[in-house]
Amino acid sequence: MAPARDPEQFFSSLSSAGRQDVLETLRRLYQRIVLDYFQSPPQVEAQVDAFVQLAYRLDLPVSRILEIHMELMADISKQLKLEHRSEDILLDYRLTLIDVMANLCETYRRATRQVLGYTAEETR
Amino acid sequence: MAPARDPEQFFSSLSSAGRQDVLETLRRLYQRIVLDYFQSPPQVEAQVDAFVQLAYRLDLPVSRILEIHMELMADISKQLKLEHRSEDILLDYRLTLIDVMANLCETYRRATRQVLGYTAEETR
Repeated sequence: MAPARDPEQFFSSLSSAGRQDVLETLRRLYQRIVLDYFQSPPQVEAQVDAFVQLAYRLDLPVSRILEIHMELMADISKQLKLEHRSEDILLDYRLTLIDVMANLCETYRRATRQVLGYTAEETR
Repeated sequence: MAPARDPEQFFSSLSSAGRQDVLETLRRLYQRIVLDYFQSPPQVEAQVDAFVQLAYRLDLPVSRILEIHMELMADISKQLKLEHRSEDILLDYRLTLIDVMANLCETYRRATRQVLGYTAEETR
């Protein structure tokens, strides 16, 4: 069940400072997810969920999530280069983004059904 | 603007044969996107759009898209092995999936806003 949303809390309704605040929170959450993703799967699921719920409540443009991912990848890449380590892991982190995006997409899909009043059990 | 949807055309409302038909169409569309993705960007944009609109009209569970991607990757991997070619391209195709998923997610996000009657211009 998708959480209720308040349009006044939408990203597009926030002040410039408010946007910077939520983007910072999202960046921190996403970094945690990426760093934990291939380490501790059970805990990561809750982290992905928290990120997705926040992005959904904010009605965050999807392009912002791509930006958060790309900025973080640039930071990690810089760090790996400094340590003369392989950057192969960056390709694996695309799986993290796919997972987050799939979860968010499914949240919106269900919300659309809810709003339209389709209560039938979704079958596969 | 997200297209209008008819719940009777939803994937969950289709017969088993109807589902196989639309999955086959989606598979063909997705394969075309993947094969063209790094070749001809202008044309690919329209193909991604067609795939996304169909998935949206079908209210297709997002997991089905992941399955279509993974099946196709398995097929391509088999082919590359037969030809003794590198499988690195499979990692690049994750970008294709990310692009498709981001587009679909944005379509649902806009639909949710539409349905809820938020007409304000979305600002970044």
